[in-house]
Amino acid sequence: MHIGSIEIDGSPAVVVRADEESAVVLPERYTDVESLLREPVDRRRAAVDEALRGGERLPIAGMTWLPPVGRPGKVLCVALNNSANPDRILSGPDTPAMFVKPSSSLIGHGRAIRLRPEFGRVHPEPELAVVIGQGGSDIPVDAALDHVFGYTIINDLTSPTMRDADTFHYRAIHPDPAAPDGIRYVESWVSYPARYKGTDTFGPIGPWVVTSDAIPDPHTLRITCSHDGRLVTDDNTANLRFSVAEVVSFASSYLTLEPGDIIAMGTALKRSSAGGAVQNVDLTTLGGVIEVAIEGIGTLSNPVERR
Amino acid sequence: MHIGSIEIDGSPAVVVRADEESAVVLPERYTDVESLLREPVDRRRAAVDEALRGGERLPIAGMTWLPPVGRPGKVLCVALNNSANPDRILSGPDTPAMFVKPSSSLIGHGRAIRLRPEFGRVHPEPELAVVIGQGGSDIPVDAALDHVFGYTIINDLTSPTMRDADTFHYRAIHPDPAAPDGIRYVESWVSYPARYKGTDTFGPIGPWVVTSDAIPDPHTLRITCSHDGRLVTDDNTANLRFSVAEVVSFASSYLTLEPGDIIAMGTALKRSSAGGAVQNVDLTTLGGVIEVAIEGIGTLSNPVERR
Repeated sequence: MHIGSIEIDGSPAVVVRADEESAVVLPERYTDVESLLREPVDRRRAAVDEALRGGERLPIAGMTWLPPVGRPGKVLCVALNNSANPDRILSGPDTPAMFVKPSSSLIGHGRAIRLRPEFGRVHPEPELAVVIGQGGSDIPVDAALDHVFGYTIINDLTSPTMRDADTFHYRAIHPDPAAPDGIRYVESWVSYPARYKGTDTFGPIGPWVVTSDAIPDPHTLRITCSHDGRLVTDDNTANLRFSVAEVVSFASSYLTLEPGDIIAMGTALKRSSAGGAVQNVDLTTLGGVIEVAIEGIGTLSNPVERR
Repeated sequence: MHIGSIEIDGSPAVVVRADEESAVVLPERYTDVESLLREPVDRRRAAVDEALRGGERLPIAGMTWLPPVGRPGKVLCVALNNSANPDRILSGPDTPAMFVKPSSSLIGHGRAIRLRPEFGRVHPEPELAVVIGQGGSDIPVDAALDHVFGYTIINDLTSPTMRDADTFHYRAIHPDPAAPDGIRYVESWVSYPARYKGTDTFGPIGPWVVTSDAIPDPHTLRITCSHDGRLVTDDNTANLRFSVAEVVSFASSYLTLEPGDIIAMGTALKRSSAGGAVQNVDLTTLGGVIEVAIEGIGTLSNPVERR
């Protein structure tokens, strides 16, 4: 099943795809995909069945898309989770490293990515995203996929210019029982991602959430990124270093997962034969339209508006 | 006015302090401080006035506290924002550097901070927190305080062990038009804070939100941190490097602020005459009770539970 959040006459609504060209609107009590997935399975199935039988039908082509979940409890993003990365890593964690993208950065399919010159370089990062259905803590790996409601697409826009600007080279304070004041200084680097990952419009997401029953194995999906029709990235979710089940399990042992939480699985990096690195697609300079497509899920397309 | 979110018979409720020892309960439509501040001023004033005249009165001492805002759109935290930091910074940004703490990490006053041995070191960070009333983008500095609904206290718990574990020393991909494949590698460090700042219970917050009319200048407040009654930090919000107005304005020019958003202003660092560095208060080893107090706002106290 393909489910999405759209805007109708200024109000949010939930749609279910009926066929390639049209979708039905669910009753008004559903305002985003989270409001649907929080309901008991029987009740939401009945609502979908009823809508497919007799609900208002809309052409998909003309829809105004919203992020599938309007204000997720968290958008957790896994860093450097592609098999192409180890060559680049001099040292790093043996477990998924994560950051949080604020919900205010999310925009729907078709909405403009708004960039200002002072953002510096901004490049796309094509990623599979997981939508959590049933929350939980300390979820075992072999039960983790039961907590996944479905899958969607996220473009984890990143400004390396702002990343460099928000990195400190500093002397961290560490305990040192032998020192007179109990501390010693350790030269360290620390970087803070709120701006470089979380600026407004840095999180295009959607259009569809495809329920997990339709995607029994999320590690066999072709994932591509195109800029103005030129194929840049041509990768496959088989190349994720940590699997969806491993990430859900690991994350839940530190951060309780809640229904509607989003987990972005990390950038697909493999270049197409014609394409370069996504890091060379500087949207601030180039403008244009950036698209991420995942087999069986759909295509997320957003124009750049330079302001 | 002092406003807080508490639990009554398993349901969330909002209370307003009536005197030193008791508070009144607002009508059931208010489920947290955000639900109150999103209402028109006249309507919320009327509700508070009515409750103070005839509402149910509860002793403050016995309350079960919740985070003032249950699921804020974002908890934005400013890093290294104390006048004591410049000596430690070898190079760093000239503007506020920020990260996002997930709402799932927040706990109320009195609730247990739950630590496991594998978290490694976990230390407290006493901070003033701002609760946004009116949202906005590109807010000018001189209008920024008009967007503040009130102030509260946050203990921005941090695991330097997990910070070190989630830091990559790697070769970042930078554009290089002169190179055959258009890129070059630049040795870099990058750290990801979801775990070390966002683990469950790493965000004690509250108990009270004090409305901004009662705190005309948020930069004159003594802020202290005590462990098991021993004064560790004795600082003043006068020592913030970037002011509340500067941070609200700067943040809003990248991340749209929404009603109920929380901004943590950065760690108060100045040691008391008897105290050491907060970095030496390793709660994973020491357990005990950790308290943060801010003049005119209150005291946030949480026991540590080692599991």
